[in-house]
Amino acid sequence: MKVKRVLETCLYVADLDKAERFYQDVLGLEIISKAEGRHVFLRCESTVFLLFNPEMTMQPTESQVPLHGAHGPCHVGFETSDAELEGWRQHLKAHQVEIEMEIDWPQGGHSIYFRDPDGNSLEVVTPKIWGF
Amino acid sequence: MKVKRVLETCLYVADLDKAERFYQDVLGLEIISKAEGRHVFLRCESTVFLLFNPEMTMQPTESQVPLHGAHGPCHVGFETSDAELEGWRQHLKAHQVEIEMEIDWPQGGHSIYFRDPDGNSLEVVTPKIWGF
Repeated sequence: MKVKRVLETCLYVADLDKAERFYQDVLGLEIISKAEGRHVFLRCESTVFLLFNPEMTMQPTESQVPLHGAHGPCHVGFETSDAELEGWRQHLKAHQVEIEMEIDWPQGGHSIYFRDPDGNSLEVVTPKIWGF
Repeated sequence: MKVKRVLETCLYVADLDKAERFYQDVLGLEIISKAEGRHVFLRCESTVFLLFNPEMTMQPTESQVPLHGAHGPCHVGFETSDAELEGWRQHLKAHQVEIEMEIDWPQGGHSIYFRDPDGNSLEVVTPKIWGF
């Protein structure tokens, strides 16, 4: 047996409203659904991106699904194209999002790293880094 | 600006060797590369799945990339098809992986939940749940 691609990726945030605005305005994701104080689910093209408040998702009384919840900065990489890299630099600047680092990978591919409001490590990255 | 799909999804584990075997044997992922004690990178069809030891990725001396690392059970959902659900039940049983819960969603779609060796919450899920 082999799973197909990753369908649901999640991050944990303390302030869901702030995170919702950030992922909509800065990353261009679209809201699928939300539960006040517990989660915001967003669509990222053909994948799903889930924001959770770990204080709620770790509470047995709040959840009909298995408990989960982490603390500390996680990492997610979003795909972009070479043609859009300069656009991302300008776009992040316009939204006062600091670029923490850029890496031009020896094997090909380029990464721009920045943080979400909760300090999670985000990356816009061209797929050549993985040989795609 | 809009990011394309999620390209890199990661989880944090204490025992990379154990996790590597689990994700290869149980989920059918293929190793791309690894750094002893720090990370194992795996391919999941057209997406990339990264396992990190947070004790290393939080160390400035160990990393050429932005620091990250979380503790506590995270969640990832992997895509499967309706036709493969029964196969997954048998496969998980054969690998002594306990199914924690199954949910048949009102909007369509079905989820099978289980844990990796570190307690991360995994799901094999049919894409109908998200209207795909």
